[in-house]
Amino acid sequence: MDSRKIIPVKHIPIHLALKMIKKISAKISSTTYLHLNEAMYKVLAEDIFCEADSPSKPISHYDGYAVRSIDTIDASSKNPLKLKLVERKDRTRLGTKEAIYVRTGFPLPEGADTVIPVEAVKREMKQIYVYAPARRGHHVIRVGAEAHKGERLFKKSHMLKPQDITLLSKLGRLSVKVFKKPKVSLISIGDELTKNIDEVGDGKILETHGLLVSSLIEVFGGELARYDLALDDVNDIREKISNALKNSDIVVTIGGSSVGVKDLVPETISGFPKANFLFRGVQTQPGKMTGLATIGDKALVMLPGNIQSTFTGSYFILQPLIRFAQDLPAFVKSNCVRAILSEDIDFHPFEGFMKLRFFKLERHGSETYAKPLSAISWLSRSLIDASGFSLIPSGIASLKEGTRIIVKDLPRIFDSINP
Amino acid sequence: MDSRKIIPVKHIPIHLALKMIKKISAKISSTTYLHLNEAMYKVLAEDIFCEADSPSKPISHYDGYAVRSIDTIDASSKNPLKLKLVERKDRTRLGTKEAIYVRTGFPLPEGADTVIPVEAVKREMKQIYVYAPARRGHHVIRVGAEAHKGERLFKKSHMLKPQDITLLSKLGRLSVKVFKKPKVSLISIGDELTKNIDEVGDGKILETHGLLVSSLIEVFGGELARYDLALDDVNDIREKISNALKNSDIVVTIGGSSVGVKDLVPETISGFPKANFLFRGVQTQPGKMTGLATIGDKALVMLPGNIQSTFTGSYFILQPLIRFAQDLPAFVKSNCVRAILSEDIDFHPFEGFMKLRFFKLERHGSETYAKPLSAISWLSRSLIDASGFSLIPSGIASLKEGTRIIVKDLPRIFDSINP
Repeated sequence: MDSRKIIPVKHIPIHLALKMIKKISAKISSTTYLHLNEAMYKVLAEDIFCEADSPSKPISHYDGYAVRSIDTIDASSKNPLKLKLVERKDRTRLGTKEAIYVRTGFPLPEGADTVIPVEAVKREMKQIYVYAPARRGHHVIRVGAEAHKGERLFKKSHMLKPQDITLLSKLGRLSVKVFKKPKVSLISIGDELTKNIDEVGDGKILETHGLLVSSLIEVFGGELARYDLALDDVNDIREKISNALKNSDIVVTIGGSSVGVKDLVPETISGFPKANFLFRGVQTQPGKMTGLATIGDKALVMLPGNIQSTFTGSYFILQPLIRFAQDLPAFVKSNCVRAILSEDIDFHPFEGFMKLRFFKLERHGSETYAKPLSAISWLSRSLIDASGFSLIPSGIASLKEGTRIIVKDLPRIFDSINP
Repeated sequence: MDSRKIIPVKHIPIHLALKMIKKISAKISSTTYLHLNEAMYKVLAEDIFCEADSPSKPISHYDGYAVRSIDTIDASSKNPLKLKLVERKDRTRLGTKEAIYVRTGFPLPEGADTVIPVEAVKREMKQIYVYAPARRGHHVIRVGAEAHKGERLFKKSHMLKPQDITLLSKLGRLSVKVFKKPKVSLISIGDELTKNIDEVGDGKILETHGLLVSSLIEVFGGELARYDLALDDVNDIREKISNALKNSDIVVTIGGSSVGVKDLVPETISGFPKANFLFRGVQTQPGKMTGLATIGDKALVMLPGNIQSTFTGSYFILQPLIRFAQDLPAFVKSNCVRAILSEDIDFHPFEGFMKLRFFKLERHGSETYAKPLSAISWLSRSLIDASGFSLIPSGIASLKEGTRIIVKDLPRIFDSINP
């Protein structure tokens, strides 16, 4: 181990951390061409322009009969119009007083300019009876109704949703250039941890913080590659990191990054030939012991092990790393609620830091109040009870009851299917 | 085929459909006991009460030295206090003027009532120097700070999030009773469809609506079991439904449920011995051709094939089926925005139906305006451009520009990682 490589703990401001993260994310960013049906929820690495009108031909918007509107002018219930039902395969162009059956979403035959719904006509063998004039263009989707040739449909950095895939498919755009989702491996560190519920007790506890971080990785836009445990042992940590490096862009350690006697992660990392520490410590509270290093072209995020710190470190450091690598803004856009603080909060001794605090929103009359929840980072209860969180900038030493604050939704996956 | 079993198309009101769905969902609902670390994002089928205080012992909230505060009263920088550093394993109880090293999150040894941060002391071999009195309870998480014995922690129907798992783990609650996520299989029907991009062209188009529905299944709280294609052929549809029934609670067909000539799904379903149609058609627009049947204890949802109809049928019929089976309210809770309608909308001839319309929200000054997007169900562009959607109740025949409406977020997954 080459302990000279380890930089000392020094809490750096978030804006400096973000600058460093941006540089590193460029190394792990990569793009690829994917078949359209594999590109869902991937982020575009190119602008996409529309190469042809969509639809390129008029499309029926009803199950019915494509006809020429001009033929139907005199149709009425008293004087039904008889049209000859022909097969599409027998016609390149619809003739006078002819009708062709079309399903919703199918192109009209040439010559037809309207569709009469199947339930509005009487069919008799090879002919139909029409009881009212059909308006030109009725039940027809006009050429270009969905997209115009030359139009920019999606900007680079747009995340492709299912409906986007549908449109691109209609346009015949079958391959797209996207950012690869960064592969992220997790290593949770501690002699006391197990993932096997039968081993719980007798000094072993169930590892659960990896579940939190793996959910966050998905919300941020990464892809979980591995999720291992390591003992408080340099050799074991080294082996787990080595394995994780093989098939990940980012390795995340949870725990063991504080300044306690048993903190072996920085020491272990320094033993890798190409290791480089960017920072150990950020000016956030909780999460102040979060660190960042590189090993060659791979990034290594050191998250603290108490749940509120783990969340905060993930939010401020892991999130922008995953997102910058896909040309996305640093932080997921959250819904925000303006609320009135219902208690004083004292940030001593962290007034110089960016604070992340969880709040429970409560509605009284027409006002929304934000009740601060405990900032003791060991307590999962604050996340459980939280409606959302606020970021309180450095320089704020306290906030008084009655202050209006902005509360952001917890990353959405946490209540995506919540009642 | 027993076509007598097929009920005719009749559009029923949503509240009636929901009643029928509730009954069917009871048949597919089932619960199981799961290990805690397999229960993430599952819905609780039991109330969970706290069986013991958490923490059950005082916990250190800092890496540091557990001491007796009374020993430190006279400590000062001029008169440093020397404490004997002992190993935990050598002591059942901390003695006078002794200190034991504790990491954050670890229980205090008996007798200790405060923790002095590691960086606040000087350590010299087997002793530490303390330079200030330590306040009782400082850096200590008190017994019951997170949860009290007897407290109801989670109600039945609560979806377990990662932080909930962490708390339950701390409380030693290693197994929980949860609802199984309903397994849902998709069958997209149409001769023209392919999932193989190399086959696109020459009469084949890429199937993409299954991507939309599979995303929605996840948002609603179901689990995708299979995703097949079927030809416009009774035998092929029957085979695909038979396969899907084997390992699903719900089978969803996409397409082929309209009244056109080639609509083979209802006919195929009626050929199953235990088939029972609940409805064919609902009073929603789009989505009015959505149907529901049962085959034995399994549910079969017939979704229309145009994208806005597919979405709407999924929203009103598939969603409550998946959610009622887990004791959840019918519809995912959405964020809502009040906005001013920027154009007139005419709902003729669907004024008797529940309408689902997509809107683009635009901010002008301090007001938010909602621009209606095309309701032509073939157009994916309306979903693409939408900020959200509104539900317009039956009985409304038109809405005037300037009306205030409520716009709901699109189901959240669609922008969970959107910039």
